Formats: sequence, C-alpha cells, structure tokens
Amino acid sequence: MNPQLDEAIRQRGKAFFASIRGESPSIFNKGFWTGKVMDWAMQNEGFKVQLFRFVDVLPYLTTSDNLSRHIEEYFSGGEAGDIPAVLKWGAEKSGLFGGVAAKLMGKAIRSNIEGMARQFIVGERTKEAVKNLSKIRKDGFAFTVDLLGEATVSELESDAYRDGYLEVLDAIAAEQKSWKPFGTGSDGLDWGSAPRVNASIKPSALFSQASPMDFDGSVEGILARMRPVYRKIMAMGGAMCIDMEQLKYKDITIELFKRLRSEPEFRDYPHLSIVLQAYMRETEHDIKDLVAWGRAEGLPFGMRLVKGAYWDYETVIAKQMGWPVPVWTRKPESDIAHEKLSRLILENSDLIYFQCASHNIRTISNVMEMAAELGVPENRYEFQALYGMAEPVRKGLLKVAGRVRLYCPYGELLPGMAYLVRRLLENTANESFLRLSFADGEAEDRLLENPQLTLERELAAAPQKAAEKTPIDGLTAFRNEPLADFTVAELRKAFPEAIAQVRGEAGRVLPLVIGGKSVETDDRIPSVNPADPGEVLANVCQAGTVEVDAAIDAAEAAFPAWRDASPKERADIILKAAAIARRDIVALSATQVLEVGKQWDQAYNDVGEAIDFLEYYAREALRLGAPKRMGREPGEKNHLFYEAKGVTAVIAPWNFPLAISVGMTSAAIVAGNTVVYKPSSLSSLTGYGMAEIFKEAGLPDGVFNYCPGRGSVMGDHLVEHPKVSTIAFTGSMETGLRIQEKAARVQPGQAYCKKVIAEMGGKNAIIIDDDADLDEAILGVVYSAFGFQGQKCSACSRVIVVDSIYDKFVSRLTEACGSLRIGPSEDPENAMGPVVDPSQQKKVQEYLRIAHEEGQVLVERQTSGPGYYAPLVVVAGIRPEHRLAQEEVFGPILAVMKADSFDQALEWATSTRFALTGGVYSRSPKHLEKARREFRVGNLYLNRNCVGAMVGRQPFGGSKMSGVGSKSGGPDYLLQFMEPRVVTENTIRRGFTPIDEDDEWFE
Amino acid sequence: MNPQLDEAIRQRGKAFFASIRGESPSIFNKGFWTGKVMDWAMQNEGFKVQLFRFVDVLPYLTTSDNLSRHIEEYFSGGEAGDIPAVLKWGAEKSGLFGGVAAKLMGKAIRSNIEGMARQFIVGERTKEAVKNLSKIRKDGFAFTVDLLGEATVSELESDAYRDGYLEVLDAIAAEQKSWKPFGTGSDGLDWGSAPRVNASIKPSALFSQASPMDFDGSVEGILARMRPVYRKIMAMGGAMCIDMEQLKYKDITIELFKRLRSEPEFRDYPHLSIVLQAYMRETEHDIKDLVAWGRAEGLPFGMRLVKGAYWDYETVIAKQMGWPVPVWTRKPESDIAHEKLSRLILENSDLIYFQCASHNIRTISNVMEMAAELGVPENRYEFQALYGMAEPVRKGLLKVAGRVRLYCPYGELLPGMAYLVRRLLENTANESFLRLSFADGEAEDRLLENPQLTLERELAAAPQKAAEKTPIDGLTAFRNEPLADFTVAELRKAFPEAIAQVRGEAGRVLPLVIGGKSVETDDRIPSVNPADPGEVLANVCQAGTVEVDAAIDAAEAAFPAWRDASPKERADIILKAAAIARRDIVALSATQVLEVGKQWDQAYNDVGEAIDFLEYYAREALRLGAPKRMGREPGEKNHLFYEAKGVTAVIAPWNFPLAISVGMTSAAIVAGNTVVYKPSSLSSLTGYGMAEIFKEAGLPDGVFNYCPGRGSVMGDHLVEHPKVSTIAFTGSMETGLRIQEKAARVQPGQAYCKKVIAEMGGKNAIIIDDDADLDEAILGVVYSAFGFQGQKCSACSRVIVVDSIYDKFVSRLTEACGSLRIGPSEDPENAMGPVVDPSQQKKVQEYLRIAHEEGQVLVERQTSGPGYYAPLVVVAGIRPEHRLAQEEVFGPILAVMKADSFDQALEWATSTRFALTGGVYSRSPKHLEKARREFRVGNLYLNRNCVGAMVGRQPFGGSKMSGVGSKSGGPDYLLQFMEPRVVTENTIRRGFTPIDEDDEWFE
Repeated sequence: MNPQLDEAIRQRGKAFFASIRGESPSIFNKGFWTGKVMDWAMQNEGFKVQLFRFVDVLPYLTTSDNLSRHIEEYFSGGEAGDIPAVLKWGAEKSGLFGGVAAKLMGKAIRSNIEGMARQFIVGERTKEAVKNLSKIRKDGFAFTVDLLGEATVSELESDAYRDGYLEVLDAIAAEQKSWKPFGTGSDGLDWGSAPRVNASIKPSALFSQASPMDFDGSVEGILARMRPVYRKIMAMGGAMCIDMEQLKYKDITIELFKRLRSEPEFRDYPHLSIVLQAYMRETEHDIKDLVAWGRAEGLPFGMRLVKGAYWDYETVIAKQMGWPVPVWTRKPESDIAHEKLSRLILENSDLIYFQCASHNIRTISNVMEMAAELGVPENRYEFQALYGMAEPVRKGLLKVAGRVRLYCPYGELLPGMAYLVRRLLENTANESFLRLSFADGEAEDRLLENPQLTLERELAAAPQKAAEKTPIDGLTAFRNEPLADFTVAELRKAFPEAIAQVRGEAGRVLPLVIGGKSVETDDRIPSVNPADPGEVLANVCQAGTVEVDAAIDAAEAAFPAWRDASPKERADIILKAAAIARRDIVALSATQVLEVGKQWDQAYNDVGEAIDFLEYYAREALRLGAPKRMGREPGEKNHLFYEAKGVTAVIAPWNFPLAISVGMTSAAIVAGNTVVYKPSSLSSLTGYGMAEIFKEAGLPDGVFNYCPGRGSVMGDHLVEHPKVSTIAFTGSMETGLRIQEKAARVQPGQAYCKKVIAEMGGKNAIIIDDDADLDEAILGVVYSAFGFQGQKCSACSRVIVVDSIYDKFVSRLTEACGSLRIGPSEDPENAMGPVVDPSQQKKVQEYLRIAHEEGQVLVERQTSGPGYYAPLVVVAGIRPEHRLAQEEVFGPILAVMKADSFDQALEWATSTRFALTGGVYSRSPKHLEKARREFRVGNLYLNRNCVGAMVGRQPFGGSKMSGVGSKSGGPDYLLQFMEPRVVTENTIRRGFTPIDEDDEWFE
Repeated sequence: MNPQLDEAIRQRGKAFFASIRGESPSIFNKGFWTGKVMDWAMQNEGFKVQLFRFVDVLPYLTTSDNLSRHIEEYFSGGEAGDIPAVLKWGAEKSGLFGGVAAKLMGKAIRSNIEGMARQFIVGERTKEAVKNLSKIRKDGFAFTVDLLGEATVSELESDAYRDGYLEVLDAIAAEQKSWKPFGTGSDGLDWGSAPRVNASIKPSALFSQASPMDFDGSVEGILARMRPVYRKIMAMGGAMCIDMEQLKYKDITIELFKRLRSEPEFRDYPHLSIVLQAYMRETEHDIKDLVAWGRAEGLPFGMRLVKGAYWDYETVIAKQMGWPVPVWTRKPESDIAHEKLSRLILENSDLIYFQCASHNIRTISNVMEMAAELGVPENRYEFQALYGMAEPVRKGLLKVAGRVRLYCPYGELLPGMAYLVRRLLENTANESFLRLSFADGEAEDRLLENPQLTLERELAAAPQKAAEKTPIDGLTAFRNEPLADFTVAELRKAFPEAIAQVRGEAGRVLPLVIGGKSVETDDRIPSVNPADPGEVLANVCQAGTVEVDAAIDAAEAAFPAWRDASPKERADIILKAAAIARRDIVALSATQVLEVGKQWDQAYNDVGEAIDFLEYYAREALRLGAPKRMGREPGEKNHLFYEAKGVTAVIAPWNFPLAISVGMTSAAIVAGNTVVYKPSSLSSLTGYGMAEIFKEAGLPDGVFNYCPGRGSVMGDHLVEHPKVSTIAFTGSMETGLRIQEKAARVQPGQAYCKKVIAEMGGKNAIIIDDDADLDEAILGVVYSAFGFQGQKCSACSRVIVVDSIYDKFVSRLTEACGSLRIGPSEDPENAMGPVVDPSQQKKVQEYLRIAHEEGQVLVERQTSGPGYYAPLVVVAGIRPEHRLAQEEVFGPILAVMKADSFDQALEWATSTRFALTGGVYSRSPKHLEKARREFRVGNLYLNRNCVGAMVGRQPFGGSKMSGVGSKSGGPDYLLQFMEPRVVTENTIRRGFTPIDEDDEWFE
C-alpha cells in the first residue's frame, strides 16, 4: 500500500477515535446486567460457552421448572463453577434453588437475556418495528430491515417467511410517506441515491429444499418466492439487498442475484444489491465476475461488503467435511481482504453502489480515504452498522461520513436468539475490534495499524507448524476422504456425464472372477435400474456350488504367499486401490445412482467411505503388523503379533454396495486373508467395480474372488465350507443368525473355529427432548428416516417425542415430509427415489397397511411410475408394543411415538431387539449425559442425524440382534480377521544375555 | 576405612603394578587370534554377543556344513555386519562361502576357538591334566582342580560326574608323590598349611534332582555322591573346596558343607572349604552364621571368597521371577563387599583358612594389608587365580605373596565352552578389572582407588532415577506376582503347615452361593485327594437347573448397578481380591496340592497367576474404561468406549483351578459383567476359595455366584439360557465345540448374540534342532511334559528331534525321565504326582496300550498306591499319522518323533488339529527365525519350556481347535467381555462451538 495513503488512513482513524472519546457501546456498560455478563464471559471461556448455549435454548424453556432446571444444569458445577453471581444480578432474591427463590431468579435471568436480545432487534411486531425505524431515521440513520428466521424446514415455512416480508413492507410503505429523505435529493432518495426503504433478505429461507446439489432448482425455488417481495419493494420505490449466508449458498445466491437483476421485469430498476464477504477466499474472484457480468449486461447494482459472520461455522464444517477451509484463517487476512476488495469495488463505482459494512475504524477510514483518493462521488458509497451494536462507531460515522445505514433485524425472539448468539460472539471474540477497542482498551495505534503489518507480526510470533507426524512407514495420519461438495460446479457437471457413461455400457455380461480368471456361467441375473426396471444395467453370471468350491480353492491356494507378504506390501496394494477409487469416484457413484437408486451425494459419500476403509485398514494393518513387545524383563523377548486366518467369505449387502463391500473385503485382505466375495444380486455391477479396482491395483490372482450367486443355491455352501475360516456378513438379522448358527457347527476337515462378523439390522430411534432445537431436529430426522429411502441399517425408523414439544414437532415434521421431492435419484432435485426392488416395495406397502391399523398415518406419499417407488410414510400414535415400533422395515416409514418424559423416551428407545444407532436432540446437559450412559446402542448421535458414520471417527456397529459388537472403521475391527500369536524367546545362553535398550534394567 | 590403611593398600598396589609393568594377559595379545577377536568384541557389542553365542554352540557343530552354516548365520549381515575379517584371520584362504574355502575357514575358526578354550582348561583327559598340574606346581603355583560339567539331567549323569572326580583324583594321587610341598612344611603341606592336592567341586551336578523346594532331599542327594569323593581326598591327604554356584543352591550348599564338615567320619579332618560370593547381598550374614557355627562346633574350615561369576544370570533371573535382586548391582559395591568380608574372615583367621580369589590388584592389596594390620599369620591365607587368565597378576602375586593357587578346570570341551563364555564375559565386561588394566589402560590411581569413592563418583554421575510412571488412576504399572522362591526358608516351612491346616478342615459341606446367600442342595459330590482318594476334602453341593436359574436371576439383578459402577470402583474391589489372595497364597496353594495333586511350586505359581489376572485386568478395565476420543475434528466429539454385556457363564477346568477360574471370572467382573461360575467338580474346593476371596473383597451380592454342578445336569442349560450373554470356557475341545454350537442357536427371549470365549486342548510339540543345547532342552522337555503329570493344555506331548542329534537326546531324556521321583505332591521331593481322577488314570493307561502298538515305549514308570497314579511314559517311533501324534492325552505321555530335518520337524509340529503351544530348542538364528514365522501356534517358546505363560508377558491362547484366538492375560482379552459403543456429539450450536485443546485446529 502506498505509504501516504496508509498514513492518511491512520490519521483519519485517530480523528475518528478522538471524535468518540469516552463513549462505549452499551453492551460493555458494566453498570447494567448485559455489560456485567459480557465482562464475565470475556474473562471466563467456560462460562461464555455455557451462556451462549443457554441463550440458544432459552426460547424453548416455556415453564419455570424447565427454566430453573436448565439454569442449574448449565451454570452450577462443571467448569464454569457455581452459578456465577453475575447471572443472579437483578434477581429479587438470591439464595439457591429452593422453590420460589429459584423461580424468581429464573424469571429475572430470562428477562435480562430477553432484554439483551431486544437490544439488537428493532421489534418483535410490525408496529413496534416500524415505530423504531421511524425513530432511527429521526436520528439521521438510514435502515435496512431484515426478517429474522433462518431455518425453514418446509415449503409452508418458506411461504410464511416470504409473507412476513410482504407484511412488514406493507406497514413500512404506509409509514414511508412521513419520512423525509436525507440530504438534498428531491427524488425521494436519501443522499440523492438511496431509496428510503431498504430490505435485506436471506435467500435460503425462501426455499426449504435448497441445496447446492440441485443448483438450478435451488435458484429457481428461491426466486419464485423472492420475486413477489422484490416486486413489492420496486412498487414502493425501495431497495433490496440479498444477504449472503454460508458458503453452501454462495454461488446459488450470486446466480439468483444475476437472474433477478436481469429479468425483464426488474432490469430497469437499479436498487438491487448483493452482499459479499471479505473473509471468503473466493470473494475477489466473485466480485470480478460480477463486475464483468454487470458491465456486459449494462446493469448497475449495489454491493455490501462485510467481513463475514459465519467464520466459526465455515471453518468447523470444512474441517469436518475434509474440504479446504474457504475463509481466511487469520483475522488480519480478512481485514487485508476487505481493504483490497473495497478498492476493487470503489474502482468500479460507476457500476457498483458500495455499502461498506464494518465496525472497524481502520476499515472505515480506509474506505473513506480510498474513495477520496479514487475520487469516488459521495453518493456512490455508504456505511452500514448493526442495530444495537457499536453505538460510538455509528455515531462517529454519522459525524464524519454522514451516510450511515443500520441493519435492523425484526421478528420473534426465538429466531432472534440465534442472531443474538452471533452478535455476542462477534463482541466477545478475542480478536473482535469492538472488544479490543472498547472492552480491552487496546492502543489506537495498534487498532489502526495496516493489517498487513499486523499479520506479519502475528506470523512471526506463531509457533512453527510441526511437520505432520508420519505415524508409520512414512504414511501420513489417516484422514477421511472429503465428503461430496456440490458447491463445486465441476462436480455438479460431472455427475450427469458419468451417469450417461454408465448407461452407455449397460447390458454387459459380468463373469465371475476366480483365481484371476473370468468365468462365465449360464445362470444369470439382470441388474436393473430401480427407477426404470426396463433398463438392464448388466447381466450377472451366478455361481453355483462348483464355482464356489473353485473360488475357495483359488483363495486357499493364494493364501500362504499373501499371508506371508509383509504388511507393507499388502498395505501398498490396498492404498493403490484407494487411489484408483479416488480417481474414479464419480463414475463409481454414478453406477450406484443407477443400480440401487442412491442420490448423488449419498452415492459419492458411499464411494468416499470405501476409500476411507482402504486408507484406514491399510494403516491398521501396519500398526498391527508390527510385533509388540510384551513385558520388559531382560533375557526374555515376548512378541505379540497378529496373523491372517485364511479364507474369508464376504457376504455383502446392496445398500452400501461399495463401502460395506470394500470395508469387509479390504479388512480381510490387508490383514493377509484371501476372499471369496458374494455381492448382493441387486448390486453386483457395483461389486464388480471393486473387482476391477483390486485388479488394477495389482492384487495377486486368487486373493480376491468375485463370486455373485443366489443365496438359496450357494449361501449355506459357502458358509459351511470347511476351508472358510472367517465369514464377514452385513445384512438382515434372519440371515445373520442363520450364518452364525451354521458356522458354529464344525464340519469334517475344518481347521479353525469359524469367526463370524455379522452386522445386522436396526430399529433406530431419535428422541426429541422438550428443549430440542427443532430447526435442526426436523432436518436431522427427515434425513435419517428418508435418505436413500430409509434403506440403511442406521436409518431412523422411530422418532420418540417428549409430550410438551410433540405438537410443534409433529406439525413441522409433517410439513417437512410433504415438501420433499420424490423421483428418480439421478435427478438431483429429488430427495427420495425408488426402493431397490419389488419385494422391498411390497414390504413397505404391507407395513403401511399395518401403520393404518396401529396408528394414525400423518403422511402417505404414494408415487406412481415405472420405478419401484414405495410410499413415504409418517405414522403417529405408535406404542412400544406395536409392530411398527419393533420390526425393521428398511424403507421410508417413520413411526412417531409420544412419550411422557425424557426418561420414558429413553426406555422406549432401547426396548427393541436391536441396538444399532440412535439419536437425541436435546439441549439439556443432564439429559445428554443420561443418554450417553443409558441409550445403549452401538452408535449414538447427540444433536445430529443418526446416519453416515465416518470411518475412524465413528466406528460403526451395534449389539443385541444388530450385530456381534464388531465396529467397522474402528481400531478393533482388523483384529477379527487375525489370530494373535506370541513368540517368547529365552535369550539367556550360559548365563549370558545382552541387555537391550527397552529392557527394564538398573538405571 | 582407616585412611592410613587405604594409603598402604594403594602403595602396595602401585608396587604390584610396578612389578608387572609391561606384561599383559595372553588373552589381550593382539598378535594372536584370541587377542584380536577379544579386541574386536570389546569394540563391537553386537559382534561380542554373536561370538559368545557361537562359542556356546560350537561343540555341537559336528559337520563342516553345519559349521559353515552357523558361521554365516551368526556373523554375516545383521548388526555385526559382514563376517569380520578378524574371524577369518588364520584361515588359509579368504573369500566367502564357496565350498572348499568356506570349509577351510570354518575349520580354522573352530580350531582357533578351541584353542582359546584350551587356554583356560588344564586338560581334556586325565593324563594331560595331571601333566599340566605338575607343570603348574613346577612354576611355583598350587592348584585346585575342577571337573567341568555343570548340568546333570539324570542320576546317571550325576554318577558319572562323581566318577569323573574319583578318576582324576586317582591319577593325581599317583602323581602326588613326585610333588614337593612348597615352603618349609615337613608334613607334606604347602606353606605348612595346605595339602598339595586340592579339588573344587560343584555340588549341584552331583544330584540331578536338586531343587530348593526339596531342601533336605537335595542336601542329602548331593552328599550321597560327595562323600565318596571327599573320602578319597581325605585318604590322599588332600583338600576339598565346595564351589558356590547360583543363589538357587546357596543355602543347600552351606547346609551340606556344614553336614559334611561335622559328620563323624570327617569332623577331625580340617581341609574342607566353602566358597562365598562377595556380590551376594546375603553373604555377610552367611559368613557370620558360618563363623558362629564353626565356633560352636569347634570345627575350623577354609573359605574362598570370590566376587561371583553369575552376576548376569542372577540379575536377569531375579528380574524375570520378580524376586529382589540378590546381588550388588554396581561393580564397586561388590568390591566394597569383598574388602569388608575379607576383614570379617581375617578377623577369624584362627577358625577360617582364607582363600582370596581375585584378579583385582586393589582387592589383593587390601587383603595383604589387612592381614598385616590384623597380624594374621601367613599360613592362614592364600591367593587364588584362574588358570589361563590374568597371567601378570598371578606372576605378581607369586612375587609379593608367594602363596598362589590356580583354579584349574579340566574336562571335555563341550562343557568347557560354557566355562569359556563365563571367562570371556569376565574379561570383556566394561567394568572388568582386567580389561580396564590391560586392554583399556585405565590409570593405576583409578584402579587402586578405594571402591567406596568409586561408588560415590558413579552414583553422582548416574541419571536421577525417574519416579515410576503411574499410568492410570494412581496405580503403578502392572508387575507379575513373584514366582515361588523356595530358597526362602519360611516358605518351605509354611507349606506343610498350610497343608495340615487344609487337612484339618476336611469334610466340610460346601454350599452354592447365589445372590450372596449360601444355598445347600441334596445332591453332593465329594472332592478327594487324588493321592489318597479316601481322604474327602469337602462335600460339594451340586446345582440343578433350578439353582442355575436362580443364579442367573441373581446375576441379572445385580448387573445394572455393577455395570454402572465406575471402572475405578470395580477395579478397587478386584485389586482388594488380589491383596487377599496374596496374603493367603500359601493356604490357597495347599488346597490345590491336596485337591488336584499339584506340586508345591506349581500350586504357588497357579495362585500367583490368579493374582496376576486380578492385577492385570483391573488395570485393563481402567484403561478401557476411559472413553477414547476418535478423530479430532472440531465441533464433533466422538467417544469410543466399552461396556459390559451382561451375565457371563464361567465354566472352568480343574487343572489350573484357581488361576484360570480367577482369570475368566475377574475379566468378566472387572469389565462390569456378573458371573455364574461353574467350577470343575474335581476342584470345587479350590473354586470355593475364589468365592471367599470375592466375598471378603466386598463384591456386591449377585455379582459372583458360585454354582458347581454336574455338567450332564446343568451344563447345556447354563449355556443355552437366554439371559447368558457370554460364556467363558476352558476345557476340552469336545466340550468347547459343543458349547459353541449350542450358544450359536438363538433362544426365545435372548437379547444378545452370545459370545463364546473358548480355550481348548493342545497337542504341543517341542522341536529339538541338531544344535540344541541339550542340557537345557532335556530339562525343558521333561518339565513341559511331566510337570503336574502333563495335565496342562500347554504341556509338551510330542518332542520332535532332528535325526542327527536324536540318539544323544533320547538317551539323555530316557535317563532323565527315569530319575524323576513320583509320589504324593505334598512331598516336595516328588516331581510327579497322581493324575486327578480315575478316568484320567484309565485314559493314560489306554494311551499306553496304544503307545505299545504304535511305537517303542522307552520309559514306562508305573506307580502303585492308593492314589490315582498314571504311568510316566516316553514312547519313540511315533509318526505324524499315529494317534499319539494327534490326540490330546492330557497326561504324562510323551511321544518322541524322529525328523529328517528341521523343516520336516516344523511341518510335523503344526500337523495336528491343535495350535496352542510349541517350543524349539535351536541355536541356529535362521531356524529360530523360521520357527517364529512358520511354527503357527498361539504361544511359541524358543529355547525354553513351553508351559507357564505369564500374564501380561505371554498372553496365552491358541487357534485352530485349541481355541478361538482370545489371549488371556493380554491386551485384547477384556474386550471380549464388553460391547463397544460410540457416542457422537455435535457440539455446534447456532454456528458456534468451543474449540478444544485436542481439536485439530489452525497452528
């Protein structure tokens, strides 16, 4: 940066500070409750966390008992210590939780927090809001009004959100007449450029089914509800700004902005703005793109530049998903970006009306000086601040710049609390400009410093990043394959192409692969597209007992050499397989989309999970392959190590057709076993993909044998074969128990007691506690119950709702289920596709009949078509003794159960034969803790959906009749495919033994 | 120490050094092969180890192929690098192993090493020895002759050892006449005090069955063969010195010395000496005891004081056994002890003729100056040095002291090699005085320093000992309970007392214990002493199905609270049980001696193992009880933890009646399960002991239920009970497979797929390679095959001997088996007792009949008596297809198989249905490595016996039909009693999540 400019910026900043000397934002005023609490939160991280979480749950605490209980759970004991005195401040009586006193204190705390929230909200009702907006204008500030409410889980809610805007706009329109424009403009515009009415609108809330995967559908879905709002705004001569939310919706938002701006109806009306976020690494690219677009189209527009309010979310989600972190990770980097992007926008001030939204005096001063330097006319830019925050800054801004707009949320406190948390975070973050300026009293020089210098200082002080550990044999630590990221346009484009490719190869004959050789048989089963059963994807040769014997012989012959290969050699081939699957991930996904009717994202993540298994088990094989010394006694070397058992039969299901197949198979193989693999006849084409991957990876012939066949013909034969030492099975309980029983009978010539690894069914429940965050709970339940048509052993098939929240939950759930789109999975707009075959279809219809008998069917969405569509069903009134509460359907039927209490819900949740997955949505620390202990299932999920366990993070598997307790993708899994051995060597000879470094010895 | 004395010692030492300036022991003479090799060994620890091991095996390398192979295996590659040039020195041709060249080099190396050995040995044959002894006397040195050969594995060998002495003494007697006494003595004594003929004798070799447990029997057994030797010595006017060996024989040796010295026949003859070792911490006590004894009896005697030659062995064995280290662990401490003990002896010079045996000039000087100070007459002490070593020292000694005796081993090279290794060790140890003086050239001042100062310096330089890690919950790391140490007199005394005590309580009625209450039933089985079946130890109530149901109900009722107790609470009770068992260890052992006929040591070690299981599993429960975070993604907490499954049925065997019962039970219990325990009807009294321990430890009622019963009545009922979730079984293959099959069938009302942990039979082989150390191999095989009458699943029941060593091995084995004593186990002289019951007895007799059919019975020792004695049988000529090579006998029958090669032996070893334990005696690194890989059994032991796996060090268990691969006492065992669970919490709320320390985050 030009040093003169920098100097000017700092001088202006100093003047700014001077102009507001002695003022402080009300939120830091310790004379009041909010200030005291903020102060305590800034000093005490544990309290801060609890406070923010408590604020989040508060609107749900509708009874005083509930309120008292949560106050105690959140604030007494634990890392935050006893309930801090600061919280009790303002309560009429102090004293701990004894009846009346507790109630009074609870009441006081609630009213204090609601007061805090109201500080940031312009009004809960239209009338109050309009009154406050008038007052704001009276104080010389312009406004933009924003309707609180971020999450819409159904189309009904999206309609309501749209209608909320229409309503408040009507009220404002009525009031507008009484507002004089600021400045000298005579056309009713403030400062000669800006409409007096300004609304900010969050696009995602306007379409409950929005998703990056269905890009175009999302854009159009949002636009459909945005148009009437914008139309009304245009009619009243106002302006609209489309807010930017999470990265997930960024490109959708930019696209819909462009479409709306250029539609014939609107293209002559210039008052449409978009928000961009300086913290997003891609924003420079996006702005340049918008500039080029605007110039090409000849369409001027407005742009608000913010730093960005979702930093925590974006970083955490990226880490969880394995995506590149999309935002700048150091605060000064965002400040630098804001300065750089401001220049970019100001350089295009003829095209873009610039709205600088920041409370940072350095940032503000930069824009002012830069605009001056570039000669930008004053009416081509304005400043924005948040209502209820940073009062000194907005006051100063009004003095120095004049053109200040306040961002004014309006609406109910419930959605307001989410907003409040975001504002509190912003105020209390260690690097917050406001905190530094007004609470911590950091020196002005430092605050006004060129952020480039700040960054350099920070980097110099940062600890050297340690090189990533290479835990074993030069490999990096295991990391999950990134989940599908459909914000990436290339990926969205790749899917239809790959699907067309698979379709192009349809109809092949797939042979068996035995000992590395293709073997064709006369008995064949076609594999078809369940969305269009006339479409035959492949004709799959079926093994009879003769072929099974040959496959086992081949596996047995290949065994000794493979077992004796070093763990490294084996792991290398498996890692190569991972690389091949990664390269072919979209093609492999496309096969699943067509063969079993998986949605794009779920198919992609299935392949990702397959890659994870390969990567994880390869590392496990190396870890377990290294003999471990036991004991440290000198003169004695004891080594524990593990060795493969022999021929493994892998009997795989069709629902995670690649992931589970690859998981069981690669575990067996990388541990040194050889495999006879029987895919499901419904997903044999996908299974053949695994055979091709292993072949390309260089697995020796016979180590893996592809052996589809009819269970009735060759299932028992495979299981009972005396040369099979391990059976890895995933599928139904009935088949699993049969396998266990058959395998336990020792056959003539059998060398090993057979090991059966069985992953079976589930009847999984999600509990909705009375304080559950319903925005999340509805989405979590719907995804868990209906994702891939409910055809997952982990799927939620019961939702148990605590009475006091039941009605609210069920009505929102019903609407949400009504909003899902159903149709072929190859079309990304469909959240639900066909079930996998006619027998599944029939089974679901049969359970629907039972549902009508046992309960009240709330949702029944029948879909006609050539595909195997089964109805999406939600049935209420189900009791624990009902079949729908006990039997696995493996389809899109969700039973709703109303429980008296959380305890009863827990009891019901664990009252089936199964114990696979479960979920709890609750914000009660005690209830969560209780669920941790007593909700006995293999995989319990708190405050999230109950499907999609990740390898290495959520080792997966259940107990009771759900399985034998083996957890795939976990540290104990590979052991099941191996025999432990111990070799003890006495190293003393003639009284002499060398003492080794790891011997226990004197000093 | 008096500073003047110290000064005098140092002055005398300097004079000593001056007198031998320029001389060097021949072993360090680098002009010769030995010197070069010693030099290389001192520089290169890896080479030294290989060299010493090679020296050890060399006598067995009887063919040149074998020799070449071993040279290559020991010296090429590996940490010692290529075959060092130094080894090849002297070989006519160099060049690597190509036919003739290799043979020639092998020959040269052999002859060089044999030459090295001969340097320390006065002769291999009587004639040569006597000639050399004469020469020694000619040079002015007295001698004491020692017959090489330490290990005798049979009474025949002990006879031969005795006869060897008699033979050499005869030859010496013949020569003696020609030897003039040294000094002026006219009575034929050297220096007026010492007989010209002097023999040193190792007591243990004189009685192959010597053992500290049978203290008195050992003393008498040795004396029986020592008397004729001493008688002959007395007849020829000679002296005898009883050598001191390992600590194991110390007290036996002192006792037999006292008895021999005081027997009427010998008490008037003063020339008997004993050796004591300065490095032994107890030696001061022992010398004082001997002084008191000698004075009380009025019997003068001689005493040789050495530093001690078994330091490595004593320290390593103590560490392995868990015993206190009996020797000083720092070299200067032994030097200090020698000085202190020398004073003690010299102060009693009127009673004791002192023989100072040391090559350390400081030590020697100390004795000379101390003797002078105390006015000890010169003829009351002498100096001793080892033949072939430290020539300068002995030369100097001769000059300054005159009275020097050389310790002269004589005998064959084979036992001589063991002696050679000991001498080489002594010469090359880092702290060896000889090495320091003559090879490393350490300064005289340092070498003559008061060892007290040396010690202080050493301690100051030593690293501070880190406090022992407390890995979890304040507990120290797991350590095995010390094995039985019958060198401790109190323990030897305690056994008969405890046995009498058990006997005193015989005949009790033992009730069931269900839910904490005693329950008597009418059906009772007496538990008897198998050595005297008329002796009823207890009348044991038997459970029927009604009682089993009650026990399961009690266990089920106790389950939830016990499962939910913290791992710490559970572990604390189990650790308390360990403390109780430790307190009562002898009483618990005594019960086993009487109830199942275990030998004292084996019974004691069984209880020790029980304690180990308690201590180990308690720690494992704490380790596994701590939830483990999976993944480090922020905003997501995944915890993997383990939880008890429910009611466990423990079905235990009688052969390790406490250890295995406690192992299975405590694993189940400490993991949080509750147990119904069915002991074997043959060991229900021992099992009741466990019930009493758990009760005293405070285990809540119902957690453990004592439930003996007839298998035919209640076995299947227990296994099939729907409320039993885990079955831990140890016993026969037939029963184990039946249990597995029954348990795999899901019963109505059954919640969990049953887990069966089955430890079954074995048909274990020990391979004797052609280079095996037979001294160790015979003892190892005999102990493995006949310890506790072969009634161990780990017992050796096949010994597979490589052809070329077959005859030698078998003849020694046969003799060794003939030497074992058989009789009631309560008498510690018996190595073998009765089998446990008449059915075992009958089974063994039946297999004896088969043995006669299938092979040649080499040993058949029938024992009559009221007890259930079964014959000890060794049968040769067994081939892999024979029943005796395939079927488990579980009794004292050993099949001997002759294999063409090591490879064939390996193939045969693994050719049974079982894969439990195995052993290899070999000194071929390649064969050991091959066995490690290919001898596929659960527990393989190299160069030691194949029984007695230690908890934590040798996790135990087999595969194939020996078991299901669970290793008791290992890190994977406890997992089998638990279900893994994963709880995943989404900690993001409203986009906000606290970042935790162990999250993966920026920087």
